Amino acid sequence: MVATFQLSTDGNRAIDITDEIAAAITDSGVAEGIAVISLPHTTASLGIISFPDPLGLVDVMDEVSRLVPTRIDFKHQHDTPQDAAGHIKSTLIGTTLSLIVTGSAALLGHSQKVYFMEHDGPRKRQVHVQVLGQVGA
Amino acid sequence: MVATFQLSTDGNRAIDITDEIAAAITDSGVAEGIAVISLPHTTASLGIISFPDPLGLVDVMDEVSRLVPTRIDFKHQHDTPQDAAGHIKSTLIGTTLSLIVTGSAALLGHSQKVYFMEHDGPRKRQVHVQVLGQVGA
Amino acid sequence: MVATFQLSTDGNRAIDITDEIAAAITDSGVAEGIAVISLPHTTASLGIISFPDPLGLVDVMDEVSRLVPTRIDFKHQHDTPQDAAGHIKSTLIGTTLSLIVTGSAALLGHSQKVYFMEHDGPRKRQVHVQVLGQVGA
Repeated sequence: MVATFQLSTDGNRAIDITDEIAAAITDSGVAEGIAVISLPHTTASLGIISFPDPLGLVDVMDEVSRLVPTRIDFKHQHDTPQDAAGHIKSTLIGTTLSLIVTGSAALLGHSQKVYFMEHDGPRKRQVHVQVLGQVGA
Repeated sequence: MVATFQLSTDGNRAIDITDEIAAAITDSGVAEGIAVISLPHTTASLGIISFPDPLGLVDVMDEVSRLVPTRIDFKHQHDTPQDAAGHIKSTLIGTTLSLIVTGSAALLGHSQKVYFMEHDGPRKRQVHVQVLGQVGA
Repeated sequence: MVATFQLSTDGNRAIDITDEIAAAITDSGVAEGIAVISLPHTTASLGIISFPDPLGLVDVMDEVSRLVPTRIDFKHQHDTPQDAAGHIKSTLIGTTLSLIVTGSAALLGHSQKVYFMEHDGPRKRQVHVQVLGQVGA
């Protein structure tokens, strides 16, 4: 029942995954219900971001790194400072997201898209989608 | 199946939408399940906030603006600085929220209410509610 | 249908509640679906955090307190400064969380655990779990 798709990140950017989520909802056959998106990762997060201006995506990622700077004095020292900062960003922004499904599609505003926010790339990543509700036409 | 209600914001405040959500849950007929609340906007967010002291709501909104200051050097320059900052606040706090529904009502603590957090008002806004679960008495 | 479990916090730490959530999912009998975790509190939050290094948990809690410092000039003055800061942390990080349930278990990555993040302890606390989906083997 869970759909899973893969992506490869080439750095710390916000990557549009709206189409992949739409495909998972279509494949589920659910017309009215909800979808839960979930990442199995601890240095990435999910965000709904305004897409018309690509520079706005850069602002969001920049601000996250301004708020949680990559520095060398984290207590977690098993990995890189980017990894340590990524754990914090991932927890604060979140790795799961619920969407309303209606008319066999995710209910998003006209400026909204769903993004995979990479905080410790480049990496191979996965996204899980679970859709629940009434199967419809 | 999706319920939608409107609100008009008169500035950047936290607006109590608990009663509107309760009405949507009642109308759905669902006794035990979950509700997903979703905003189609990119400069607003949803928060569960302690309501007994109205000054606490001001603290939350003030702190959000202290963390993401409205400044003129965002890369996104198509709109106002308030709009650019609002996109970031909206993504970080989130535009969707899942609530547990039990006894035909949202399960909230005695000090919790659900708020629409406006970051780029005044505006006309919408809130969507999808309720899933067992229809009951 | 809602499962509730108790915990006592001995300070402001991240407390692993993964096993309690797993038990609630098992008890629900749901094989494929979703789980919504919800706190009835306004000075605590839920986070999915990397668990292998306990110092990473300390980093997350430290960073939250660096971002929202406990200070005496909040407008909310009915309680302690720790309580006023806790309300803000609780709203920004969030008190509800959706998990995918598959194979009668929460779908988590190999480094992920679910944590109760206490921002105003020590306290007696509750966690609610609602599971929805197809009952299975």
